[in-house]
Amino acid sequence: MLNLSNQITYKRVFAELFLTKIGFTKLSATGNDFILIDNRQKIMFGNEYDLIRKICSRRTGIGADGVLLIEESVENDFKMRYYNADGFEAEMCGNGARACAYYSDKNGIARSQMTFEVSGAHYSAHVDGAFISLLMQKPENLNLHPAALESTDFQEGGYLVLGVPHYVLFADRIQEIDVEKVGSYYCEHPEFKPRKTNVNFVSQQNGKIQIRTFERGVNEETLSCGTGTVSSAIILNMVRKKTYPMDFETAGGPLRVDFDVTSGRYLLQGTVTEVYTGSFQMENFS
Amino acid sequence: MLNLSNQITYKRVFAELFLTKIGFTKLSATGNDFILIDNRQKIMFGNEYDLIRKICSRRTGIGADGVLLIEESVENDFKMRYYNADGFEAEMCGNGARACAYYSDKNGIARSQMTFEVSGAHYSAHVDGAFISLLMQKPENLNLHPAALESTDFQEGGYLVLGVPHYVLFADRIQEIDVEKVGSYYCEHPEFKPRKTNVNFVSQQNGKIQIRTFERGVNEETLSCGTGTVSSAIILNMVRKKTYPMDFETAGGPLRVDFDVTSGRYLLQGTVTEVYTGSFQMENFS
Repeated sequence: MLNLSNQITYKRVFAELFLTKIGFTKLSATGNDFILIDNRQKIMFGNEYDLIRKICSRRTGIGADGVLLIEESVENDFKMRYYNADGFEAEMCGNGARACAYYSDKNGIARSQMTFEVSGAHYSAHVDGAFISLLMQKPENLNLHPAALESTDFQEGGYLVLGVPHYVLFADRIQEIDVEKVGSYYCEHPEFKPRKTNVNFVSQQNGKIQIRTFERGVNEETLSCGTGTVSSAIILNMVRKKTYPMDFETAGGPLRVDFDVTSGRYLLQGTVTEVYTGSFQMENFS
Repeated sequence: MLNLSNQITYKRVFAELFLTKIGFTKLSATGNDFILIDNRQKIMFGNEYDLIRKICSRRTGIGADGVLLIEESVENDFKMRYYNADGFEAEMCGNGARACAYYSDKNGIARSQMTFEVSGAHYSAHVDGAFISLLMQKPENLNLHPAALESTDFQEGGYLVLGVPHYVLFADRIQEIDVEKVGSYYCEHPEFKPRKTNVNFVSQQNGKIQIRTFERGVNEETLSCGTGTVSSAIILNMVRKKTYPMDFETAGGPLRVDFDVTSGRYLLQGTVTEVYTGSFQMENFS
């Protein structure tokens, strides 16, 4: 139990934090958008789940697919923590990692060739202007026949975990799919309980690869999903023998997936843009 | 035609503007949210329709129902200009005017009892902390029988112009209405061409008045609409003999409408909150 002196100090610190303006940068990684907070001064405790849910709300908050915290790291240039719009911390976010790399290069946190950790795993990225290449972790729990599919509109590609779980479905006429409805159905499917899964719809037409993703944690379709795009590339290569590099069209812009022979790992490549900077007071979302 | 010297000056000024950071404040007037820019230094020309449409976009921009510019005024404390999320300038916005009054009081642009102009009309407001009372203009073009209704699910209240046009429909079980579908239908109805109209759905149950509005210019439902709420009060008074003051429940919070006997005008009352502050570069939305 805290003694009186500690309690007073705690209350003072809490009151100051409550009124402190928290600076942020809004970044878009091919349409996947994030509120990035430089948390090296530990202004956020990392357990403000309710605050994060509120600031991610698009009408009553700042509005974003998720929140990125950049923190100090002993072995790497920085540590990234990622929170989905629902307020829960997630293991990884590929586009979020690209956004952190872009921000860290622009703000002197890291050099253009950098390493960082996310949920205990190590990643490296290279920043060339607005173009970011991210070397991903190897996939786990690959299952090309999860047998969850219950519709003849799609062909089952497979399931894997690339930091976060992904289910890949091949489809025609991708723009006609009700991604919210079908995506949320498979996201919650018994086969993927209790972890649930992101759901990717992939089509190959006229030499182009198009992708749309229903994101677990955002609970809707996002304009692009980094780990979903790499997961889909891996499954396209294994099931349909598509060779690297692969260029994907997302609603938010192009993403490229390449294979790095030396490390046996996958590269996610695409642009990041800074949309604006801002600051907010915690009390406005209490 | 500009001479060479003027052309060079023009290009320099334009280039500087392009790279200048434009500060803004995000304000919520009972859920109706705005990007407010203090334009007394004339950093915006007022014709940046494409920019406004882009920054109002909720996924790729900053995200808002509309943009408010505060400008210098000769006769009043300030002039307000309002742009809907579709990029077009509109004649008036009641919640936007309340947001401008709140901001002007907090930032020393006006005292708590203030006057301002919008589209050549004069308004006055009183700020009491976060609670803002706005004295509206008198309604015009009142028509209690526009006879546009084509559904038995509703009862026609009437039509009037309160700076902007409003069609009022009485309904039961207001939460079950597909406001996007029915609202956009009547917004575009031949009866209201070419100006189109905002569409309000109003219910009275258990002594409470609930309202939902499809906003022309935002092209979707907003969490609350100020002029729509006052328009609905006027029609509730005329058609259903409901007396003032009237308390409305919107999705974004409570709004009160009162009648000022002295001026014969209507008061819109409710809170405004500052959500956050920020700045952006025009080049990020070019």
